[in-house]
Amino acid sequence: MDQSVEIICVGNELLIGKTLNTNAQWLAKRITTLGLTTRRVTVVDDDIDEISRGIKDAIQRNTGFLITTGGLGPTFDDKTLEGLAKALGRRIEINEEALKMVKEKYLSYAQEGRIDVAELTPPRVKMAKLPEGATPLFNPVGTAPAVVVEHESVTIIALPGVPSEMKSIFDMSVASVLKQAACGVTFFETSIEATKVVESEIAPLIDKVMHNNPYVYIKSHPKGAERVSRIEFHLSTTAKDSSTARKRVSRALLQLSELIQEKGGKIKPVKS
Amino acid sequence: MDQSVEIICVGNELLIGKTLNTNAQWLAKRITTLGLTTRRVTVVDDDIDEISRGIKDAIQRNTGFLITTGGLGPTFDDKTLEGLAKALGRRIEINEEALKMVKEKYLSYAQEGRIDVAELTPPRVKMAKLPEGATPLFNPVGTAPAVVVEHESVTIIALPGVPSEMKSIFDMSVASVLKQAACGVTFFETSIEATKVVESEIAPLIDKVMHNNPYVYIKSHPKGAERVSRIEFHLSTTAKDSSTARKRVSRALLQLSELIQEKGGKIKPVKS
Repeated sequence: MDQSVEIICVGNELLIGKTLNTNAQWLAKRITTLGLTTRRVTVVDDDIDEISRGIKDAIQRNTGFLITTGGLGPTFDDKTLEGLAKALGRRIEINEEALKMVKEKYLSYAQEGRIDVAELTPPRVKMAKLPEGATPLFNPVGTAPAVVVEHESVTIIALPGVPSEMKSIFDMSVASVLKQAACGVTFFETSIEATKVVESEIAPLIDKVMHNNPYVYIKSHPKGAERVSRIEFHLSTTAKDSSTARKRVSRALLQLSELIQEKGGKIKPVKS
Repeated sequence: MDQSVEIICVGNELLIGKTLNTNAQWLAKRITTLGLTTRRVTVVDDDIDEISRGIKDAIQRNTGFLITTGGLGPTFDDKTLEGLAKALGRRIEINEEALKMVKEKYLSYAQEGRIDVAELTPPRVKMAKLPEGATPLFNPVGTAPAVVVEHESVTIIALPGVPSEMKSIFDMSVASVLKQAACGVTFFETSIEATKVVESEIAPLIDKVMHNNPYVYIKSHPKGAERVSRIEFHLSTTAKDSSTARKRVSRALLQLSELIQEKGGKIKPVKS
């Protein structure tokens, strides 16, 4: 199985800049920590054709997993499952297991006095309409179930957009599946910061250290208002076990620090 | 000219979840305020093929503008311009105007004593290597120039990834071009918050108000840990002048508020 992941975030609020896409960062970090690679993040509008096109494109790029966020709720603009069904060429239908989940949620809301009637109105039933062959995942925080569907060699997981719901379903039902697909690969990262150097002087040193440490990825991030003032170096690797990953990064870190200091740079821990 | 915009953010740090993509939100908000529509945001890795594929896809979707962020600096992993050249089928070459900009930056850094020599080393010259036919945009904050290139009917603008550099170049050299392309269209938005209602009960009310106000887009955002606790309603429109936009949103807001209150909901201003 391909271990790469793509993320598609659905929501007009992201495309008008109303909302900062913290979901994508949270997911990307968790995916990386679990040993998989996020290849691409795409943000699309609440539009069936846009969602469908985004999903089709990701499937064509042969991603192993595709995780979507947003668009599972009861309102007219929650269109992710319709877009997904369209992308997969499947019908959308009431899933009995999902309907049971939704029904029980509203029964409990009515018992708690938060709503008057637990009746399954069309907007409530909408949350149980899944593409044919899909499986609902229980939402411990909110109402709309998440959805898993296998298509060709891709596992597609549709999560809600509300961060607390997205995170709890991911941790409860998705993380273990990704971890298994990673086959024990672990990720390790560290950062240092240098002052009194400019990025253009450090560029050849990074090349040298990366050449000597082919499994370590080193990225420089200029910080502050001036490109020359402060540079963060982020070193990361993935390896079959955490001890190897840690050793690789430590070795590269030592070499890079020495070369920066030879150039007159000052090394500091990273201010977070 | 098509008034839609796509954003491509280049950077491994975004795909491993190290960095929150504040650039995409900032750009999307500015683009919206200027009267244009952001159709899609894509995040790709620091990889020439990934960048090239992302750019080609956006061009094929007939976007009017394509704005990229990141990958313009002096290090090995700054690959946006190579990816852009590949996508457009153009050679990459030293641009004399860009080289002059870079040279003057290093001369000033040397005069300020921040670097020893202002020599144009290969990593420094790299920042002046642009796709054939491209134009550099002066970077008032950092070193690497931004880049504009016209291709078929798409205007492609490559901005740096350092937020302060990205923002200053956008405001200085990009905003006016986008504003002109918007032909006077303005965007207006407002939000209210409701408690004591559940989203599934409000769904038909939103449908009704949107039916009566076809130019106003209404989106509900459940807030807090429980989908039933607190809902924000975001109303927005674009119109040929700000007075029309404002009137349209006010009318829809009034109708929605009345319907929510009829359902027993409490309306509040939005806590920011």
